[in-house]
Amino acid sequence: TRMLKNWASVLVLIQLCYYFSCGSCGKVLVWPMGYSHWMNVKAILDELVQRGHEVTVLTSSAATLVDPNKPSAINFEVYPSSFTKDELDSYFMEWITKWAFELPRSTLWAYGPKMQKTYYEYSDTIQKLCEDAISNKKLIKKLKELKFDVILGDAISPCCELLAELLNLPFIYTLRFTTGNTYEKLCGGLPYPPSYVPVVVSELSDKMTFMERVTNMLYLLHFDFFFETFNKKKWDQFYSEALGKPTTLCELMGKADMFLPNFEFVGGLHCKPAKPLPKEMEEFVQSSGEDGVVVFSLGSMVKNLPEEKANLIAAALAKIPQKVVWRFGGKTPDTLGPNTRLYEWIPQNDLLGHPKTKAFITHGGTNGVYEAIYHGVPMVGLPLFVDQPDNMAHMKAKGAAVYLNLNTMSSTDFLNALNTVINDTSYKENAMKLSRIHHDQPVKPLDRAVFWIEFVMRHKGAKHLRVAAYDLTWFQYHSLDVIAFLLACVAMAIFIITKCCLLCCLKFSKTGKKKKRE
Amino acid sequence: TRMLKNWASVLVLIQLCYYFSCGSCGKVLVWPMGYSHWMNVKAILDELVQRGHEVTVLTSSAATLVDPNKPSAINFEVYPSSFTKDELDSYFMEWITKWAFELPRSTLWAYGPKMQKTYYEYSDTIQKLCEDAISNKKLIKKLKELKFDVILGDAISPCCELLAELLNLPFIYTLRFTTGNTYEKLCGGLPYPPSYVPVVVSELSDKMTFMERVTNMLYLLHFDFFFETFNKKKWDQFYSEALGKPTTLCELMGKADMFLPNFEFVGGLHCKPAKPLPKEMEEFVQSSGEDGVVVFSLGSMVKNLPEEKANLIAAALAKIPQKVVWRFGGKTPDTLGPNTRLYEWIPQNDLLGHPKTKAFITHGGTNGVYEAIYHGVPMVGLPLFVDQPDNMAHMKAKGAAVYLNLNTMSSTDFLNALNTVINDTSYKENAMKLSRIHHDQPVKPLDRAVFWIEFVMRHKGAKHLRVAAYDLTWFQYHSLDVIAFLLACVAMAIFIITKCCLLCCLKFSKTGKKKKRE
Repeated sequence: TRMLKNWASVLVLIQLCYYFSCGSCGKVLVWPMGYSHWMNVKAILDELVQRGHEVTVLTSSAATLVDPNKPSAINFEVYPSSFTKDELDSYFMEWITKWAFELPRSTLWAYGPKMQKTYYEYSDTIQKLCEDAISNKKLIKKLKELKFDVILGDAISPCCELLAELLNLPFIYTLRFTTGNTYEKLCGGLPYPPSYVPVVVSELSDKMTFMERVTNMLYLLHFDFFFETFNKKKWDQFYSEALGKPTTLCELMGKADMFLPNFEFVGGLHCKPAKPLPKEMEEFVQSSGEDGVVVFSLGSMVKNLPEEKANLIAAALAKIPQKVVWRFGGKTPDTLGPNTRLYEWIPQNDLLGHPKTKAFITHGGTNGVYEAIYHGVPMVGLPLFVDQPDNMAHMKAKGAAVYLNLNTMSSTDFLNALNTVINDTSYKENAMKLSRIHHDQPVKPLDRAVFWIEFVMRHKGAKHLRVAAYDLTWFQYHSLDVIAFLLACVAMAIFIITKCCLLCCLKFSKTGKKKKRE
Repeated sequence: TRMLKNWASVLVLIQLCYYFSCGSCGKVLVWPMGYSHWMNVKAILDELVQRGHEVTVLTSSAATLVDPNKPSAINFEVYPSSFTKDELDSYFMEWITKWAFELPRSTLWAYGPKMQKTYYEYSDTIQKLCEDAISNKKLIKKLKELKFDVILGDAISPCCELLAELLNLPFIYTLRFTTGNTYEKLCGGLPYPPSYVPVVVSELSDKMTFMERVTNMLYLLHFDFFFETFNKKKWDQFYSEALGKPTTLCELMGKADMFLPNFEFVGGLHCKPAKPLPKEMEEFVQSSGEDGVVVFSLGSMVKNLPEEKANLIAAALAKIPQKVVWRFGGKTPDTLGPNTRLYEWIPQNDLLGHPKTKAFITHGGTNGVYEAIYHGVPMVGLPLFVDQPDNMAHMKAKGAAVYLNLNTMSSTDFLNALNTVINDTSYKENAMKLSRIHHDQPVKPLDRAVFWIEFVMRHKGAKHLRVAAYDLTWFQYHSLDVIAFLLACVAMAIFIITKCCLLCCLKFSKTGKKKKRE
């Protein structure tokens, strides 16, 4: 026991060292995005709090997932919004329905404008939320007085860059992408060569055929065009008014000290080992015997499905020997088999980490896909919107998933996909390979994410780490001006030499003629 | 004391855990380059040995710095060379003299061909060393039997990629660069946009004016042209003969599992805290009082200087109030002041880490520059060849150094540079800033370098980490084929539409005419 006691005291000492080692504990302000984005950034915030930092989340009174009433070590600074909670929530739900079920049914010609409209609506909503905060003089004054060290934001929901400018603080984007990569590319100066970087929503991988590269280029032109023609203008005007001087969204976004996931690979930072399941669920899972279970969830935003879809899916699930744990909030499908149990909520990570789990039916959200990679579970994808088809396309390219179009698939398609992923051992092997690689990192993604946030706080910014490409225009970046200049020089040289030769010839022939005449 | 004993046992336990934790201890084969490159890779090899790996260095009997007779935990596999030690050493010494002192005096027109000649000679020597090993059947058989897990090499001295092919092993380049970045760019598929990546030997920084970008582009074209026209051919032929099938140097180099310093920033991996100085040196350093000391070394290859240069330098050194520790193997200069002491060898890192050190006079080799950064010492550069002027240009851009042209500078220039770096506090401040940033990394560079080498051993390669750009040609990479295709489509569309319009017009006018006639 003395040995144990000594060990315990050593452990306490180590913990104390750990707590006191935070030589640069600071104050972090967060402008969050809701839903799965919040789940992701919360993993970072919890770790920051653990390490002794003071974290304040700025959230509108209409925010849906950020629950300021739930006890938390994170401070929530709630400002009044021009939306109600219901308005905002139902807006997002409608938005999803449009993306997931209405858009895919559009004709080719209607698709573009319709998609653009959903973007615009989204952009307007996000902008209103930002305006509510920025125009709140009392709030801004309070934030100034609180003297933060850094702001964390999400490029898909702009505002943190404006806050950073108003509060004169460094800021970091903690999440990677905007649709079409337009913001990070056109404002952040990050290079995205379309020859091997698939545009988000293109469903392409990094290895493309010629025609796929043509498609990727068309996606790129499409998004760049929309970015230039619309989104920017409203935001530019709003930001210029807010700062009282002409500026643009791009200019402020480009000042980011770090675009974290582009700078350091921190994918899957929220993943962690599985905890034991609730008793009832564990019993159900164990009852599956040798066949094991299938975990089914369409993510934090989609709790429901159109009735015919739900029936089609339930019918297929009833035909597999596995037990199915399905997170579903809608009306119980008529075709539901005895092997399938519905839950309003599931401990997804704990289920994916369960040894009985054979496959994961997923909408292909980044969080869920990383959890499946972490635990080495093969996937059947039913991607719905934005980056979900991409994520599934990448998992398919790695041989760890099959994915289907929820809007067009038949019950048999779905059943076949499930059976393939479960019974063709290559899917499990590939998922396990991805898992081994994911676990084999010198420092865990979460620790690295937090390290770089602390780094920006310690050094009051990290401008020195930005690629010099930030300060170049697109034609400078591609050296087009230099190439044009050099070609002009060559042309000039050829012109002068030709002229000289001609002159010489002329003179020579004249002399020749003269001589002849003489 | 019991507390202490317990602590000691805890420490022993931790150490034991550490030793037994090497679950994938493996066998590492190294194809080394000499001189400073060897000093750099040796830091990695020592750490690998520490962690329980078996390290074998393949070295020719003519190798100069790799001393197989010095006791070491590293195995040396010595193969007979067609050079003698003296031949090889004197070749390298002549090569340096040419680069450092003859080339800079050439006229603009003679410079290109002369530089090319020095390259060719270098390339031929390196190739001969490789041929000696590869044609040694007994040696290759032995290496095959030893069953290594990975090969480490240096892109500036090719051969490891051929060995990797013959032994069917993954391989890693542990050092960054080849002149002009040609190999890593043209064989390795690494993108080096000339708009912000200065070509090695250009002396440019990442922030360039228009004319500097033009210069950088010309350097790039120059090196790409030389690469395509010469170097490759001899190597391609040699590699094809060695493998008995048509291949190219590029093809084999492109198979590298990792171009380590391009993949993970591990610069300064050899740096470590200063140890105490030898007694005599410490006394000399302490005798400098408030003024402090200046450390002076031109690197592992240059021990000597032309007499007039040495006199010019010594005269300037005699005029500063600091004491000077000068690593110099030549004839004692007549102008040597009482404040300057000459040494055949100096513990450079320990001197740079000494609190009395005020400045570092350096040839700008990567190792020395990193040591100066590590300890926060401002520099006066006297760069001689290859990347040294670049390194100094980058340090100058960061405000931590001044550098001069050894071939053209006067004694006063040198004195002024020294006084500036020592007395203008901004140089020390900038050097300290670089030092703080360098020390602020989540994992030390050496540990990360070793981690990724172990990673390649664990996963039997790391092809999955390679950027997809590897498999693209340069015109595919820049999407030139896609752009041409799309432009052709647009042209075709315009052509067809115009034709249709014309046809319609024609028909319309004909109908009109007909109607008129009726």
